[in-house]
Amino acid sequence: MPLPLNPAFAATFPPPVMEARRWIEGVTFPPERPLINVSQAAPVAAPPEGLRRAIAEAALENPAAHLYGPVLGLPELRAEVARQWSRAYGGAVAPEQVAITQGCNQAFCAVMATLAGAGDEVLLPTPWYFNHKMWLDMAGVRAVPLAPGAGLLPDPDEAAARITPRTRAIVLVSPNNPGGVEYPAELVAAFLDLARARGLALIVDETYRDFDAREGAPHDLFADPDWDEVLIQLYSFSKAYRLTGHRVGAIVAAPARLAEVEKFLDTVAICPNQLGQIGALWGMRNLGDWLAGERAEILARRAAMEAAMADLPGWYLLGCGAYFAYATHPDPRPSPEFARALVREAGVLMLPGTMFMPEDAPEARRQMRIAFANIDATGIAELAERLRARVR
Amino acid sequence: MPLPLNPAFAATFPPPVMEARRWIEGVTFPPERPLINVSQAAPVAAPPEGLRRAIAEAALENPAAHLYGPVLGLPELRAEVARQWSRAYGGAVAPEQVAITQGCNQAFCAVMATLAGAGDEVLLPTPWYFNHKMWLDMAGVRAVPLAPGAGLLPDPDEAAARITPRTRAIVLVSPNNPGGVEYPAELVAAFLDLARARGLALIVDETYRDFDAREGAPHDLFADPDWDEVLIQLYSFSKAYRLTGHRVGAIVAAPARLAEVEKFLDTVAICPNQLGQIGALWGMRNLGDWLAGERAEILARRAAMEAAMADLPGWYLLGCGAYFAYATHPDPRPSPEFARALVREAGVLMLPGTMFMPEDAPEARRQMRIAFANIDATGIAELAERLRARVR
Repeated sequence: MPLPLNPAFAATFPPPVMEARRWIEGVTFPPERPLINVSQAAPVAAPPEGLRRAIAEAALENPAAHLYGPVLGLPELRAEVARQWSRAYGGAVAPEQVAITQGCNQAFCAVMATLAGAGDEVLLPTPWYFNHKMWLDMAGVRAVPLAPGAGLLPDPDEAAARITPRTRAIVLVSPNNPGGVEYPAELVAAFLDLARARGLALIVDETYRDFDAREGAPHDLFADPDWDEVLIQLYSFSKAYRLTGHRVGAIVAAPARLAEVEKFLDTVAICPNQLGQIGALWGMRNLGDWLAGERAEILARRAAMEAAMADLPGWYLLGCGAYFAYATHPDPRPSPEFARALVREAGVLMLPGTMFMPEDAPEARRQMRIAFANIDATGIAELAERLRARVR
Repeated sequence: MPLPLNPAFAATFPPPVMEARRWIEGVTFPPERPLINVSQAAPVAAPPEGLRRAIAEAALENPAAHLYGPVLGLPELRAEVARQWSRAYGGAVAPEQVAITQGCNQAFCAVMATLAGAGDEVLLPTPWYFNHKMWLDMAGVRAVPLAPGAGLLPDPDEAAARITPRTRAIVLVSPNNPGGVEYPAELVAAFLDLARARGLALIVDETYRDFDAREGAPHDLFADPDWDEVLIQLYSFSKAYRLTGHRVGAIVAAPARLAEVEKFLDTVAICPNQLGQIGALWGMRNLGDWLAGERAEILARRAAMEAAMADLPGWYLLGCGAYFAYATHPDPRPSPEFARALVREAGVLMLPGTMFMPEDAPEARRQMRIAFANIDATGIAELAERLRARVR
């Protein structure tokens, strides 16, 4: 007799990044043409030496770095986020409005669990971030897709029309994964107004905030003194400080919401790991200039990507920014087949649009996500060359 | 308009350990009588220097220690668990039957999410581990309590009688938190037989396994070549190697189950943090003798606790082992009030039985959990003295 399986698990898909890793298993790439892996958005190098040293010193000399800490995170880190956020967004964020999580994915799950249970609905612009969709699937929450409008931007009017009595929240990701687009401040504000008017939470995932091409605050939601009545912001320390292997993220929300989040995190995490928090705090305090340089490099890669794609027959860029380009491809095969073929035929690993769209969205079969942040201008040129060679 | 709140969150309780921490806020303890904190089961010192050095060296010199790893954990750590488990339990455990999680709490949540959704039921012996109850509450799963029999042991016959078409799993914790009791091998085997016969998963949480007083394997479930058709074992590296602040745990289960668990962990964790895994692996490979000494010390404290309680008027030990004593108290007030009073009147922090039992279990008002592992024989004598002074 097979063991029980929660049917909500059968209804969702396996982790896309792990599936893509399996596509390259057993494939050999010649030294003169190594794999170009643009499947996952993640730094591929260690953080700066000072940060590594801060972690190493804590491991050796600070006993508290090995012991349980508060469920909602180190007070110093919560305070530092509050301080820097208040300045960056021109608003008031207090330490008790900040919680630290084991990565931004967990921040999303924790917040969403407090908002929506089985049978509830959440509005999710497409293309969506696959882990958001997976969590909702596994929790029995219906992800209501919003169609991508011009520039891959969601439409508040469509969102308003899709609200039902079961709707609990609207989720925005800006800069967007997978679309790369930066949502205009007015658009984000329009969604806040909609959420407020309809009694919904507005979740804004700003994992890629530090690589936004715009100067200054990307939106003015925090300038509203009552922001925490509606807004729940998510953040990741992984990309800014190269801490993906440490799992540190944050939630910025009302203290009452964080009291509910604390129940989830106590049960799922007990506390965020200490060394990762120590690294994140050191980074926030010491790596401002370094991060500005990282941002400049990512923006240069983005420009290189835009230029390369503009010159690539049959490809059309739908969005480009942060770590991602999202584009239509010219291959006659549907994107999942094309993605697998690219591994063997071009030594390139990228994810098909079908991983970011509902099953019944036919355009996804023509789309690909290219996580270009891991390759420099030379690598982008080489990527474009390989894609061009296939089209000829 | 207040934001939506998942009613399942309103239905569960706040984290007990965090609540207890609030009881000591603002209370000053004189230097000659410092707080005796027996509320949480956790090491209060750093791991041995070699392990700390292994983590520090990885932070400084191993770039991969800062980057994403596989969702189900480092292959070397999975293999080491499989190797040591096969030997310790006299059975066959393969690396692909092991997954690493961000702590054992997360192991429970991940496994349970794959088994049971809203409306399902899970059998949970009482007194229960509060985070298990909280997860089930938040997921909308009904925790069906099993009454504590003689020696706080659950009864397979009662369990059999409580199985319904919605039952998905039986959860055992041995050595038990909060009860301290070590479940006899025959009892665990009887639950396995029951679970197998009724198509349920048997989850055995062995967080405190390394402090079991019995020599050899505490049960023979892994000796059954088909163990993974029924058994799901959970483990924590936190207590054995003093890694609570790193969040590393494990699931031992069928590969097909772990493929479902991978969906949950990809979404909630992405991967376990690398430095914690590196520390756990170093500990498994190098701290066997040290851990034997740690176990001897915990067993000595247990003996001291049993002796002290036997001599304490009005207190009666219901269970004692691993990190915990679970006892009835002589105070006329219900345990939650008594626990709060003990902070001010005796400088002692322990958790009331009501945190481990259903609300309608009147005996919980007479019970307390004492996490004695954090105090040595002198501390235990002092604790007993303070409790005795109150009774006189």
